This record gives sequence, C-alpha cells and structure tokens, in this order.
Amino acid sequence: MSNKPTLNTSLSPALLHLYDLSNSVVVIIDVFRATSTIASALYNGAKCVIPVDSVPKAIDISKSIGGIAAGERDGMIAEGLQHGNSPLEYTRDFIENKTLVLTTTNGTRLLQMALDKNADTIISGSFPNLSAVCDFLVKENKNVVLGCAGWKDRFNLEDTLFAGAVINRIAQHFTIHCDSSLMAETMYLQNKNKMIDFAPQLTHYHRLVERFGLIEDIRYCLTDDVANVLPVYMDGKLVAQ
Amino acid sequence: MSNKPTLNTSLSPALLHLYDLSNSVVVIIDVFRATSTIASALYNGAKCVIPVDSVPKAIDISKSIGGIAAGERDGMIAEGLQHGNSPLEYTRDFIENKTLVLTTTNGTRLLQMALDKNADTIISGSFPNLSAVCDFLVKENKNVVLGCAGWKDRFNLEDTLFAGAVINRIAQHFTIHCDSSLMAETMYLQNKNKMIDFAPQLTHYHRLVERFGLIEDIRYCLTDDVANVLPVYMDGKLVAQ
Repeated sequence: MSNKPTLNTSLSPALLHLYDLSNSVVVIIDVFRATSTIASALYNGAKCVIPVDSVPKAIDISKSIGGIAAGERDGMIAEGLQHGNSPLEYTRDFIENKTLVLTTTNGTRLLQMALDKNADTIISGSFPNLSAVCDFLVKENKNVVLGCAGWKDRFNLEDTLFAGAVINRIAQHFTIHCDSSLMAETMYLQNKNKMIDFAPQLTHYHRLVERFGLIEDIRYCLTDDVANVLPVYMDGKLVAQ
Repeated sequence: MSNKPTLNTSLSPALLHLYDLSNSVVVIIDVFRATSTIASALYNGAKCVIPVDSVPKAIDISKSIGGIAAGERDGMIAEGLQHGNSPLEYTRDFIENKTLVLTTTNGTRLLQMALDKNADTIISGSFPNLSAVCDFLVKENKNVVLGCAGWKDRFNLEDTLFAGAVINRIAQHFTIHCDSSLMAETMYLQNKNKMIDFAPQLTHYHRLVERFGLIEDIRYCLTDDVANVLPVYMDGKLVAQ
C-alpha cells in the first residue's frame, strides 16, 4: 500500500459532493477567468481578494472597506459594477494595496461549496500561477481535490486542462485512482504545446471572444506562471501566501 | 444558423439535469457492463430486457412472468440472484425467447432518471451495438443526449470512450457545442486502436479484472458490433428494434 496522499479531480461543481474535502486541499479552478484574475490581482499587489456571491454584496462590502467592487455575469461586467473579471484590468497601477471584492458566475460559487463542505484548505489555481499551486500541493503532502468550476455546472475543457497540467507535474507524489484525472492529464499532454490554437474549439472561447472580443484575456489565462502567487483562502479572503 | 439537431454528452448521472431530454433521444451508456449485457441478451434472442432498480423487484417480476432475474451490485452477482451482469452469460442457448429482468448499479438508475425527465426516446448503447446506435441516431434526426452512467455518479472513461466513438461516426449530422463531446471524441481517437491495452488504466478495469477476473467480459465490452441490435425502451421493457 502506498502512503502517498490521494489526488482526485472533480469535473463540475455538481460532482464535488462525491469527494471528501475535510482532509483535503481543494484547488478552485476557473481558468476563464475568475482564478486567473485572482492570481493577477494578488500578483500585482492587491491586499486581498474577497469573493462574494452577489453584486449587491460586492458593492456593500467594497463601500464599507474602501475596496474595488468587481465581477461578471455570463461573461460581461455585472450590471451595477464598473470593473469586470478580466485579469488584464488588474494592473499594479490600479490594484496595488487595494482590496478586490469579486463576484463571478462559477468560481465564487464553487469556493462557497468547498467552504460548506469543510475543506481543510482552499487555494485558487490557474495557468498564471501553475507553479505556485504545484509547489504548495507537493509541500503540503495532504490529499488534493482539483475542483473545476465549469460553466453553470457543465464540464469545460479549460479547467480540465489546468487540472491536467497540475497532475502532469505532481502525479508522482500522489496516489491517483481517478478516471477524471487520467483524462485531464491526457487532454493536457495532447494540447500543452498548442493551447492557444486549441482554444477556439472551447465553448467558452466563443462566449468570450466572439461575443466580447476578449482574445487577450484568453491568451493571458492560458499562459503559465505570469502571475505566480499562491492565493490561499482564510477568514473570508484570498491572500497571497 | 444550422438546422441540424444538437448532440450533447452528459458525463455523469449527476449532470443529466443540465440537458433538455424532452425532445431528445437519450442513449444510456454503461459499457462495463449493463448496456453491453443488454445488447448481448437481445442479440441472442431474448424477448426483452426489463430493467429494474432493486433485487427484490427483479426476483418478484421474474417469478411472475417466468423470466430470468439477474443483476450485480458493486461488480458482483447481487445477493439473492443466480445470474449476474456478464454479457458472456447470455448465450443464445440460455437466453433465447426468455425475458431478462436486470438490476445494475449504474445503468438502471440512469435509465430511470431519463424516464423521470420525460426523454422523448430511450435507447441503450455499448461498443457491441455501436453501429446500430449510430444508424438509429442519424435516421431519427432528433436532438441527442449521450448519457454516461459512470460509477456511482463519478465520471468514467469507458462510457466516455463510447460516447466519443458515436460522435466520431455521426458528428457531421449534428450541431455540437459541448466540451464534453469534444473531449470524448478526442479521448476516443487517441485510444481507438489500442482499447484493450488502454483498459488497464481505467479504475473500473481494476474493479472487474483484479477483483473478479473478468478480462473476457472487458474484451467483449470493448469490441465493436459483436451484438449489433438496437435496444429501444418502451412500456417498461428494452426490446430489439
């Protein structure tokens, strides 16, 4: 028997209940774009990111603490907000020493689910902070659940590809009996050298690029280690560790 | 705009609620082994297969109609039954002109869910009846949901590979905006010529082969068109169309 901790991949928030989170590090993965934006903001000096589940809550909290309210619904800046869910919006000039109060369609909801299920530790992952995530998971040496945010509970490939990237780097440190993880690594290996070319096949690509012209966002969100911080959730906030 | 019907792939029963089944042909996919067994029994002349959700129900119904009660729980012949969920058990000598009353861990449950969601048409699919399924779906020209039974709501690769095989054959007849389908076809194309060699990587392979020695079952369940009938569900029974 191996004494290595386990690693599992949850392909949708609707499958998260299948995994025991109470002894696990849960990685929230919302590649397009929440967790890429969180990495970007923290990398560029944001004090913290407060994820919230509604626009009114984002506005209320940001007012009370002097933060930046931001978020999207269905890929667009949410009504009533001035700032959206683009990682490129959160430059150092704009976000340094500020608090970002962020609400998104999928990532925020998944994080709340992980909290409700008493996850041992919650971090957020995306290609921009791939190495920081992998280093942390190996160092912690605990069970891991890679939690894909998907799109309104549907499977999506970009989150799966990120899970595959993590697995490809750290698999030897874990016991993996999980077809989702095997599939994720296979899909990653097949596409890792052509991620930008593969992107137009993704349903979410069409949502973002054809409807909103966010090709630069897509490129950023698929680039390794351009915002290599580790966002850890504690006391209601994601802070860079 | 395309007038082609849509095709979607549901990777787990826990994701089936995301799809509109009321105007769709739903393909129940439980490669290891329920839908392979259903194909085998009908191909070998069974009058019909009655899927039921419990062992007592299988026994009661088979007694009242003089049928064969069969089924598995967790991969083994279910307690109280003499016949299991092996497609190789249902030879022509044994099953011709008989009714099989079958209860299984995953496939039967998914079929009930599709019924509850008012699926327009329900058929069952597996590699042994791949061509019959594809021919029917093209001929019907309706929306399609490929429903993977998975393992206790977890994603599994063998059902996904079958979905990919169907998509690979009939994609040109459908509108497909579905990352699950794209992934399924990719995984299928990568493994179609080495299915038996790939099988040992599947979690379910270990469940069946290492614990129960069912390697011949696995081979049968991964072979195209060896029981090429079309099981259609109507009035509580799966019958060969």
